[in-house]
Amino acid sequence: MQNFIYYAPTEVVFGRDAESQAASMICKYGGTKVLLHYGGQSAVKSGLLARVEACLDAAGIAYVKLGGVRPNPRLSLVREGIEICRREGIDFLLAVGGGSVIDSCKAISSGCFYEGDVWTLYEHKDHATKYLPIGCVLTIPAAGSEMSGGSVITNDEHEQWLKKDYGADQLRCRFALMNPELTFTLPAWQTACGITDMIMHTLERYFSKDDDMEITDAIAEALIRSCMSEGRKVMENPRDYVARANIMWAGSLAHNDLTGCGTTGDWATHNIEHELSAKFDVSHGAGLAAVWGSWARYTRSENLPRFERFARNVMGVDTAGMSELEASEAGICAMEAFFRSLGMPTDIHSLIGREVLDEELEDMADKCTNSCTTTVGALKVLGKDDIVEIYRMAR
Amino acid sequence: MQNFIYYAPTEVVFGRDAESQAASMICKYGGTKVLLHYGGQSAVKSGLLARVEACLDAAGIAYVKLGGVRPNPRLSLVREGIEICRREGIDFLLAVGGGSVIDSCKAISSGCFYEGDVWTLYEHKDHATKYLPIGCVLTIPAAGSEMSGGSVITNDEHEQWLKKDYGADQLRCRFALMNPELTFTLPAWQTACGITDMIMHTLERYFSKDDDMEITDAIAEALIRSCMSEGRKVMENPRDYVARANIMWAGSLAHNDLTGCGTTGDWATHNIEHELSAKFDVSHGAGLAAVWGSWARYTRSENLPRFERFARNVMGVDTAGMSELEASEAGICAMEAFFRSLGMPTDIHSLIGREVLDEELEDMADKCTNSCTTTVGALKVLGKDDIVEIYRMAR
Repeated sequence: MQNFIYYAPTEVVFGRDAESQAASMICKYGGTKVLLHYGGQSAVKSGLLARVEACLDAAGIAYVKLGGVRPNPRLSLVREGIEICRREGIDFLLAVGGGSVIDSCKAISSGCFYEGDVWTLYEHKDHATKYLPIGCVLTIPAAGSEMSGGSVITNDEHEQWLKKDYGADQLRCRFALMNPELTFTLPAWQTACGITDMIMHTLERYFSKDDDMEITDAIAEALIRSCMSEGRKVMENPRDYVARANIMWAGSLAHNDLTGCGTTGDWATHNIEHELSAKFDVSHGAGLAAVWGSWARYTRSENLPRFERFARNVMGVDTAGMSELEASEAGICAMEAFFRSLGMPTDIHSLIGREVLDEELEDMADKCTNSCTTTVGALKVLGKDDIVEIYRMAR
Repeated sequence: MQNFIYYAPTEVVFGRDAESQAASMICKYGGTKVLLHYGGQSAVKSGLLARVEACLDAAGIAYVKLGGVRPNPRLSLVREGIEICRREGIDFLLAVGGGSVIDSCKAISSGCFYEGDVWTLYEHKDHATKYLPIGCVLTIPAAGSEMSGGSVITNDEHEQWLKKDYGADQLRCRFALMNPELTFTLPAWQTACGITDMIMHTLERYFSKDDDMEITDAIAEALIRSCMSEGRKVMENPRDYVARANIMWAGSLAHNDLTGCGTTGDWATHNIEHELSAKFDVSHGAGLAAVWGSWARYTRSENLPRFERFARNVMGVDTAGMSELEASEAGICAMEAFFRSLGMPTDIHSLIGREVLDEELEDMADKCTNSCTTTVGALKVLGKDDIVEIYRMAR
């Protein structure tokens, strides 16, 4: 097992009406002038934004609004946010939305006091030293960004978009207000993408060469099983409060590092997917579902017993009498079947609606490895050729 | 399901040699003059205390030493600690030990800036507003105090000792340094008491009327199963690093509220046990094992399906064809059998080495309910008569 650091300081307020505590929590964590950051029309139409504004008004907290965050949040809007924060003397960021809005806040937080260009941080060429504090009202359980220190931003300033990540402990939300009722109106597609994403956050940590952290493995298995059982309920009845609550909390636990304590994460599937959503602007969750099975089949020989355990403990496969390879295949197929039951694609053609071209695969694999200068993954370390092969298997 | 707050801000540094980061972590969290608080001879003999002192010396951090914490930590030593902190201008508390040392630190932290008598806080008659920050080098995984906000102190200043609790978010350790190797030399009895305590921290949250937080239940079940499987390994081979690591981490997760998210904890067994250890100065874990089965049999009718689920999902009982009552009995018996396999008593006679007297039971039940003015428990709310009956069933 690996040494580890576990640090999840976000104060989670979970339950009906949690958003009504926005003002008191901002005060608790020292905010006096807030950038209220959100996405498109849903927070406006649902009345949530107006409720949050009323809550801040009642407490006498000044704020500036910046909406328009889109899925795969864009660098251009981040720059606008940084400008506003500097100009207006903002001292606290409140994200009202899902992972994209929180990640956009994180980029603004990182860039606000940083003297260089914020994209430098996402290029992993420097580290910021001072950050604006962040809180959130979560509306889309998926990315787990409300308890994680990481963020992903898409550079939309060149012809070819680039999607890169940056993280720091100071980017962890001070608080996360989580009301499952706010997720009742999420479209089925977005709900399904979210469930897929949280399962994948757990799988990326679970498939490791470290087989001895039993408690972490058992928790990861419990988490994925719960995502599946509660996910089925949510897809059937989107207004099932308890199932929505379980899914919402699962999204946070799947990405606050709990399921990676003592193990080496892999994260190749995430890296391979990021190029898909950067190139085709597809949903992250759907992109993950499209390539995971191919990643699993390409890498499983590195630790077949683990894939066998996955089949048995997570997917409920009766592996008696099966070879490890057969068991692994049964487990992978069962996971893919679950993804499809959510309406997720499990190949790239279904994801983008046409056949992906050879030169596109090459180009994505090239970007994924920074022109063959880096590798991805840990269970099996993958170079450009490996990634091309996984894209081909998934095409 | 219940609304909940989850707040576990402690930075955990886990693995070999973690204690070598004591000085850097104290600096990170703003400490400049430290009270180094510890227990008896084991931290001295093992060389751990000397290593921690050398680490502080090398970093130029001033400190004052206060040893002598005993199991069921005493108010008298807490008062001494508060005096030292005030006199010496201490601004950080470093606990080197287990739950008793950490709890003693928490009481000192609570009392240092409090104008009244610190015991007033433990009588739940007031709340402190300012606290000294705490960090710890954990040597005994059991109480989970390294990630919890709670503490338990024994008032040894009257003929009849009293054991009371006090908690606050500010009492959560800023950091916890957790090196499983430090637990290699723990005696079997103490190891077994610790495993029992962490299982009980999970059970107290698991047995609830809230049956719908699937993800919390599944994690709790995973945690207890891991405690049992890894606990068996540790009892067989005390120097099994991986098993010790799993047990050490389990102790923290069992008491950082993760296993209680969305459910109402019961905690009656803890309350019932506290009177046993206050009266007979027995180990907390052993006291819990002695009374849990009787508590379970007395209260199970409030939620038999939950006891059936426990039997099946945690204890691996094949409940097919059993009534819920039979299944519950099989589950309780299996848990008691596991406690006995650790060398734990499962009745009060085995715990204290003699028959407990009727007047002793009455007296403990009286104290447990503050002379019939309060109740304990939530699955079934227990008054004095109920508690007497549970003591009798366990005698």
